[in-house]
Amino acid sequence: MDSKPSLVESFARVRIVLSHTSHPGNIGAAARALKTMGFSRLVLVNPKCFPDPQAEAMASGAGDVLASAQVAGSLAEALEGVTLALALTARRRDLATAPLWARDGAAELAAVAAHGEVALVFGNETSGLSNEELALCSRWATIPANPEYSSLNLAAAVQLLCYELRIALGAVSSAPTFTAAGTPATHDEIEGLMAHLEKEAVASGFLDPDNPRRLMLRLRRLFARATLEKEEVNILRGLLASFRQPTGKQHRGK
Amino acid sequence: MDSKPSLVESFARVRIVLSHTSHPGNIGAAARALKTMGFSRLVLVNPKCFPDPQAEAMASGAGDVLASAQVAGSLAEALEGVTLALALTARRRDLATAPLWARDGAAELAAVAAHGEVALVFGNETSGLSNEELALCSRWATIPANPEYSSLNLAAAVQLLCYELRIALGAVSSAPTFTAAGTPATHDEIEGLMAHLEKEAVASGFLDPDNPRRLMLRLRRLFARATLEKEEVNILRGLLASFRQPTGKQHRGK
Repeated sequence: MDSKPSLVESFARVRIVLSHTSHPGNIGAAARALKTMGFSRLVLVNPKCFPDPQAEAMASGAGDVLASAQVAGSLAEALEGVTLALALTARRRDLATAPLWARDGAAELAAVAAHGEVALVFGNETSGLSNEELALCSRWATIPANPEYSSLNLAAAVQLLCYELRIALGAVSSAPTFTAAGTPATHDEIEGLMAHLEKEAVASGFLDPDNPRRLMLRLRRLFARATLEKEEVNILRGLLASFRQPTGKQHRGK
Repeated sequence: MDSKPSLVESFARVRIVLSHTSHPGNIGAAARALKTMGFSRLVLVNPKCFPDPQAEAMASGAGDVLASAQVAGSLAEALEGVTLALALTARRRDLATAPLWARDGAAELAAVAAHGEVALVFGNETSGLSNEELALCSRWATIPANPEYSSLNLAAAVQLLCYELRIALGAVSSAPTFTAAGTPATHDEIEGLMAHLEKEAVASGFLDPDNPRRLMLRLRRLFARATLEKEEVNILRGLLASFRQPTGKQHRGK
C-alpha cells in the first residue's frame, strides 16, 4: 500500500471506530472512504444493522474491509490496546477543553501511530458520541464547517479525517507550488483566443478543418500549462491579427 | 455564513460543477457536502436524472442548493465567466502536466477567488472528465489516495475539495472557538485553591515544607492546562475540606 515499511506499520496501527451507526449504508460508505486513504481496520460498536446488503452495496470495492470488520459491544472494548483515541465531535459546551481542528488532531494521531495503536472514533449519525464515550477518548477533533449547516454525512467525515491522517502520516509527496505573475485571463478571454487561433489556423491552411481535433487540444494544453494572463491573451491576439495581410488577403494565397 | 464581507464574496464566487453525473443520489450528497463547507452554487452539466427524489433525499438539509442548481448543456457553458477552473482527476498519462494535490489546487483557486469567478469541476462517477472537458480547465487536481484503491465516492471528493477550499479561503480560525461550560475561575480563586492545597498537603505530610517547590509547580501546571472554572474550584476546595477530620484533628496525628 505504501512503500516504506515503517509507514506500512503506522497505517496498520490505525483503527477506525464507528459507534452505534444507524444506517448500514453509512458503514459501507465509511469502509470505502477509509480504504481509499490506505486504511483497513474497521471496528463497529453496536451497529444497528450489520452485516447488511446496503453496507455491501455502498462499500463498492471495499468489501474486504467490511468482511474483516470487528464488532464490539462497547467503545471501551473497541479501544482496547489503544494509546491515543481521537473522537470526532461537533463543537459543544460540555467538553473539558476545546476540540482540535481535524488537521491538528490527525497530526497528533500520526505522531503516536509511529509507535502505538491509535483510533479515530465516530458517533451515531444523529446524536454523535455520548459523554461517556467522549470521556474514553483523550483527544477531540472538529471539522471546520459552515456554522449555519455543519451536518456532514458520516462517511464524508470518515473520508476527511482519514485523508488528513494519510497526509499527516507522511504518505503524500510534496507538490509544486505556484506563483501567479499578472492578472489571470478569464475563461471567456481564453476561449476567445482559442476561437481566434483556430480561425486563423484554418485560414492559413495550417489546420485542416476536416481533422482539427488534435491541434486545438494540444494548443489548449499548452496554454493551460502556461496559465495565461490577460495581457498575454491580448498580445497573442494582437499577434494573430497582425498575421492577416492588411489588404484582407489570406496567407498562402488562399 | 462567514463574517468578513470579502470572505462572503469569495465564497459566492465559487461554483461547483458536476459533469454528466449518473446517480442522482450523488448530486444530492454533493449538494450537502458543499453546503457544509459554506458554498451554495451547484452547476450540473447534462445530469442523467435531475431533479430526482433520490437527490432530494441525499441532500438532507441542502435542498436549497438543489433548488437553485443550474443545469448546463456543456462544460463550456457551465464555465462561462470563470477565471480559473480546477478539475478533479485521477493521475493520468495524457495530461500535459502533473496535476496538483487537492490542497495546492484549492490554494490557487482561493487566491483567484479573491477577485474572480472560480470553478471546481468533477466528472462522471465511472469515466471522470473527458479529454475535451479537461482541456477546458486550466488546472487539474488529484486527491492523494491509496494507489491500490483510489476510487473515492463523488460526493466524498466534493466534500474533500470544498473542505480544502474553505480552509484555503481563510475561513478557518487557528483553533475552534470554544465556549466553556461555566465561568472561568479568577486568578485569586485559583491562588486560593493552590494555597488551600499546599496547606493540606503539608498538614497531611505529603508535602515536605523544606522542599516544597516541585510538587506545587506540577499541580499548577496541571490546573493551568485544565483552565479551571469557578465551580470546579469550589468542588476541589470542598473535597479538600472534607479530607480534614471532623474533629479538626489533622491527618497522621500532627
